[in-house]
Amino acid sequence: MERQFIEQLSARLPRHPQLLLGIGDDAALLRLASRADCVVTADLLADGTHFRLPSDDLRRVGRKALAVNLSDLAAMAARPVAAVVSLLLPRHNALSMATQIYDGMLPMAERFNVAIAGGDTNCWDGAPAIGVTAIGETTTRGVLRRDGALAGDAILVTGSLGGSRLGKHFDFTPRVSEALLLHRRFELHAAMDISDGLLIDLSRICAASGVGAQLDLGEIPISPAAEKWASKISAAKRGIGRTPLEHALSDGEDFELLLTTSAEESRKIIQQQPLDVPITKIGQIVAGSGITGRTASGDRQDLQPLGFEHGKMA
Amino acid sequence: MERQFIEQLSARLPRHPQLLLGIGDDAALLRLASRADCVVTADLLADGTHFRLPSDDLRRVGRKALAVNLSDLAAMAARPVAAVVSLLLPRHNALSMATQIYDGMLPMAERFNVAIAGGDTNCWDGAPAIGVTAIGETTTRGVLRRDGALAGDAILVTGSLGGSRLGKHFDFTPRVSEALLLHRRFELHAAMDISDGLLIDLSRICAASGVGAQLDLGEIPISPAAEKWASKISAAKRGIGRTPLEHALSDGEDFELLLTTSAEESRKIIQQQPLDVPITKIGQIVAGSGITGRTASGDRQDLQPLGFEHGKMA
Repeated sequence: MERQFIEQLSARLPRHPQLLLGIGDDAALLRLASRADCVVTADLLADGTHFRLPSDDLRRVGRKALAVNLSDLAAMAARPVAAVVSLLLPRHNALSMATQIYDGMLPMAERFNVAIAGGDTNCWDGAPAIGVTAIGETTTRGVLRRDGALAGDAILVTGSLGGSRLGKHFDFTPRVSEALLLHRRFELHAAMDISDGLLIDLSRICAASGVGAQLDLGEIPISPAAEKWASKISAAKRGIGRTPLEHALSDGEDFELLLTTSAEESRKIIQQQPLDVPITKIGQIVAGSGITGRTASGDRQDLQPLGFEHGKMA
Repeated sequence: MERQFIEQLSARLPRHPQLLLGIGDDAALLRLASRADCVVTADLLADGTHFRLPSDDLRRVGRKALAVNLSDLAAMAARPVAAVVSLLLPRHNALSMATQIYDGMLPMAERFNVAIAGGDTNCWDGAPAIGVTAIGETTTRGVLRRDGALAGDAILVTGSLGGSRLGKHFDFTPRVSEALLLHRRFELHAAMDISDGLLIDLSRICAASGVGAQLDLGEIPISPAAEKWASKISAAKRGIGRTPLEHALSDGEDFELLLTTSAEESRKIIQQQPLDVPITKIGQIVAGSGITGRTASGDRQDLQPLGFEHGKMA
């Protein structure tokens, strides 16, 4: 039965010019662009931790399992090439679940021109889990890293932040083409994708680069979902909910790009708005360490890098 | 706590000349050899299916999780470069388990010069599972595939077969250096590693290549473990146990190389015995389909490709 599923899956996969040998041998063979380096990332989603059955649709989970990895490649400004997929599925329902997962994943793979190069489909007595390893290639500009931020850099973010749990955490678009375009046209210094929340992820850029950051709190692009979530919670528990800004600062899974670049380059980017999504300057990198927030009225406060890390080792 | 574990792990990892950027960014950056193609394989081991806690030692499981992937790279005659490791661990015991898994995996990584390039360590309420994706590079000779066997080819196998469940399934040596040496010095036609049993894996080479096979049953190298297992079982259940030969034909997880090459090339290999392990001619590829066995006395029988596939989708 696994063989039958794999054969059906193989038949559904479009040809990919860089996949020289795909599903059906002991390993897959990929041809990267000439002189490209290989960029690799892995993420695993598990039932009860990263998603919840039966309320979550497995197609959306399958889509997300690939999309989070593409978001990591985007964070490096790498071009996606292929993915390998490891499934761990409950014995009694494996075929139906595998089908749903791939039903969600394959359109995302096709959209981003990612070859499904292989994987491993297993049954067990436990809950389902989906592991994806994505492989990308560098462009001639190399990769963007976390450790390149410099004091004086502007901090930029794509899209809007907060409240992704109302839906975006499943349906987000990984910012692959945005990252490639920005990296090609501008001199960027550091990049990440916002997976655990703006503050925690910005603190990682700061730690890796040996710098601090100052956020202009009035400039943070707050998503409608963050507003909606804040109003919902404050209606129910007046006074103890979080504000829309707090959601934007610390909700996880925005999967937007967080970038730093020189003040001059930042002015060009903000003026040109070269993406299909807005890109906003939200603060600057400073010497030292830690993150401070500055309100529109000029008040400053230290911001703790609190965010959202689900399923991380506790 | 995850960060602390990752930092400790990073500190334990030796530098690797091809790992330009390792654990700590959104993705890892690997430099493959000039003009090499990228070879990728993934395998996942889950508690209760591929191993059983607490009776199995998690260090041996961690070693095996990498070794099975290296065996797949060996089957392609690819040179291992890196691995990414996704762990799914029970919340209450995650740190101890992760440590044991890496304690078993890291010496294997070092022995085969594999960079641990990254991964994802998650907790949940379920049982542990270990997913490894291994990345290799082609040599100038390209890869060995399953679909290259030709009628008239000799069928060769390294080491001895059967009874791996008595221990070898954990402690086997992936035949990486053997595959690279044979591929460099001889003209091989097709290759696999024996993971699901000689008959089932040979049937895959046959199916992929559009050929059949004839095994010389008296030539199959039977491991001492197969003899031991057969005698154990026949003592307990006289008459219904399997013979040592049956174990050698159909036990899984031998992780030996199964190769085909021309009769002439085979004679050279067998005569030279260029490996540290024996290499044995066990039959020939024939036109048609299916596998037949020929006994020393010349009797022939059809052999069904029965093997061992645990945890595969049922």
